[in-house]
Amino acid sequence: MSVRKPTTLTLPVPLPLDSGQALDAAQIAYESYGELAADKSNAILVCHALTGDQYLASTHPVTGKPGWWDRMVGPGKPIDTARYFVICANVIGSCLGSTGPASPAADGKPYAMRFPVITIRDMVRGLVGLLDGLGIERLHAVVGGSMGGMQALSLAANFPGRTERVLAIATTARHSAQNIAFHEVGRQAIMADPAWAGGDYYASSKQPDAGLAVARMAAHITYLSEEGLTEKFGRRLQDRPDGSAGEKSFGFDADFQVESYLRYQGSGFTRRFDANSYLYITRAMDYFDLAEEFAGEQGGGQLAAAFAGSSARFCLVSFDTDWLYPTAESRHIVHALNAAGAPVSFVELSAPYGHDSFLLDVPPLDRVVRGFLGG
Amino acid sequence: MSVRKPTTLTLPVPLPLDSGQALDAAQIAYESYGELAADKSNAILVCHALTGDQYLASTHPVTGKPGWWDRMVGPGKPIDTARYFVICANVIGSCLGSTGPASPAADGKPYAMRFPVITIRDMVRGLVGLLDGLGIERLHAVVGGSMGGMQALSLAANFPGRTERVLAIATTARHSAQNIAFHEVGRQAIMADPAWAGGDYYASSKQPDAGLAVARMAAHITYLSEEGLTEKFGRRLQDRPDGSAGEKSFGFDADFQVESYLRYQGSGFTRRFDANSYLYITRAMDYFDLAEEFAGEQGGGQLAAAFAGSSARFCLVSFDTDWLYPTAESRHIVHALNAAGAPVSFVELSAPYGHDSFLLDVPPLDRVVRGFLGG
Repeated sequence: MSVRKPTTLTLPVPLPLDSGQALDAAQIAYESYGELAADKSNAILVCHALTGDQYLASTHPVTGKPGWWDRMVGPGKPIDTARYFVICANVIGSCLGSTGPASPAADGKPYAMRFPVITIRDMVRGLVGLLDGLGIERLHAVVGGSMGGMQALSLAANFPGRTERVLAIATTARHSAQNIAFHEVGRQAIMADPAWAGGDYYASSKQPDAGLAVARMAAHITYLSEEGLTEKFGRRLQDRPDGSAGEKSFGFDADFQVESYLRYQGSGFTRRFDANSYLYITRAMDYFDLAEEFAGEQGGGQLAAAFAGSSARFCLVSFDTDWLYPTAESRHIVHALNAAGAPVSFVELSAPYGHDSFLLDVPPLDRVVRGFLGG
Repeated sequence: MSVRKPTTLTLPVPLPLDSGQALDAAQIAYESYGELAADKSNAILVCHALTGDQYLASTHPVTGKPGWWDRMVGPGKPIDTARYFVICANVIGSCLGSTGPASPAADGKPYAMRFPVITIRDMVRGLVGLLDGLGIERLHAVVGGSMGGMQALSLAANFPGRTERVLAIATTARHSAQNIAFHEVGRQAIMADPAWAGGDYYASSKQPDAGLAVARMAAHITYLSEEGLTEKFGRRLQDRPDGSAGEKSFGFDADFQVESYLRYQGSGFTRRFDANSYLYITRAMDYFDLAEEFAGEQGGGQLAAAFAGSSARFCLVSFDTDWLYPTAESRHIVHALNAAGAPVSFVELSAPYGHDSFLLDVPPLDRVVRGFLGG
């Protein structure tokens, strides 16, 4: 991929990891928008989701598409870059400039599967390292949806003095058995692809695109609601190449529009994402259990303990059609925050798009984001 | 696979298919239990699900496991073989003795992808051919869960004189966009496996087991409820080989019990099922839309029309945790039966196991089955 070089900061000290290992000279690639105030009080950190990146509101260098939250971030938008200095960084383990499995290890060759297994907390340690490098002691807010919400909660719990506000959208404090199961299918699809080659495919002419595409397709279904899929595609057939109305082919081509859509999602994804990064980041999400991190000697952690030291204000948002991280998961977090005495507001929004609602056109979300950040 | 030879009936005339093709000398492999009454009035046809087979209440020749509905079928059991003559046949397209992609075509080589694409109605045509061969004009009942339920409904609609009772469990009258999407992921996983080789793997030393296992894993998640997975596995870790309590490995082995379970489900499946059969049968299910089959000239079929000629009594059963074919799908069928003036009873049962509830220990289901068949 020949793309413009990302802006990066190299952490000056080794990044400690939950595994006990450390990452030397970890690079954090980031984008920023707006101006940092002289007193550095107006910084907002936006954390990205599993397959997201730092191109929050700027053109993606590989796909050429607008930033993934362009509708939310910009001058006059809910995350208003005329007021705030907005930062978004690629998480460690990813593949858009931050240190990950595709990065060179000490021997100059890609880490591949020698890259240490990381956690959400490790990602957050990397982000806090970036804030340190930028001289930002305390954020106006940390904001994130899905895995970004996990990072926002982890930052609040592990670095309680570093943010005034926490906005966590369509997320969870722990991965469920079903969440883990879907991720495991994706990992198995990648590792079943002979081109994966134990992770050592970087110098090969063959990439594990087929396995990665299947992983993406399986995951993509979980991002959409059954109602949304029915409304968008139903059982409608593909039009024929000549433009005439589709008929069943009695073959294995994509007859149904939903099949064609999924195939497109799968193949498009492989052009912008590294298969090993997908393995590492899904693993980090599956390991995520914020209560467990704050468990006492006897284990059996109470999520409230995670937030005991926090002075931040919280806002939780869920979507009624999100079956990946349903409203009950947000409510579980709210109850823990209540028990910890933390100020929290919570809203379940109605939107037809399932988990992906946080990325899509849901005007009530805009109002919640604007209101919480400005309040 | 060296296994005991299945009991088969060869259809005396070519089996016509919805694609316009026909299957010559199609074989239908079946098992039967109990005694056919002299007046042939006590026959019950049980239709199997996607990965099921004719070994309803007898030992599976490959796995050595008891029949898949052993708890339901036998002397004194809800489907009482002391009273009824119970038949279960492998559907065409499958791989346990009925004609399918692994069967020899006219040239003596396996059909592989030369096998015609079939539909649920084609499967039912094969089953009716078997009934003809056995001299059974009118069934006491046709019974099926999941894809078996689709066949039961299709038989009632397309061969309205052939059964007195229809018992359709955990099923639907049409595959939704989400249903199709999950199947498409499975098909793509199989076809992405280089060992699939365009379907021509029968003479090869390599079989597309990796792809088929991924397909099975993805599908298996849809058979279980989120609650069931949480109850059965939660976030519990695997015990170590030495028996000590599990810890996170910070690697990609199966750390979580749910991962290990899924891998086991995937690999076990490949020992008993043919990858091409999986492609063909999922395609048949995705094509299933009973209302469409009975659409008028203008299209836009009304499901009620499918049942207009039926003289059977119907019973529909759904499970409250089934998110693959949720209760709303059964209710949709019930409304159509009401509109067609057909006698129908309907019950939604509470069971924690999701879609797979129809196969598991749900005593209220036993009572419903016994009552409906005996009434």
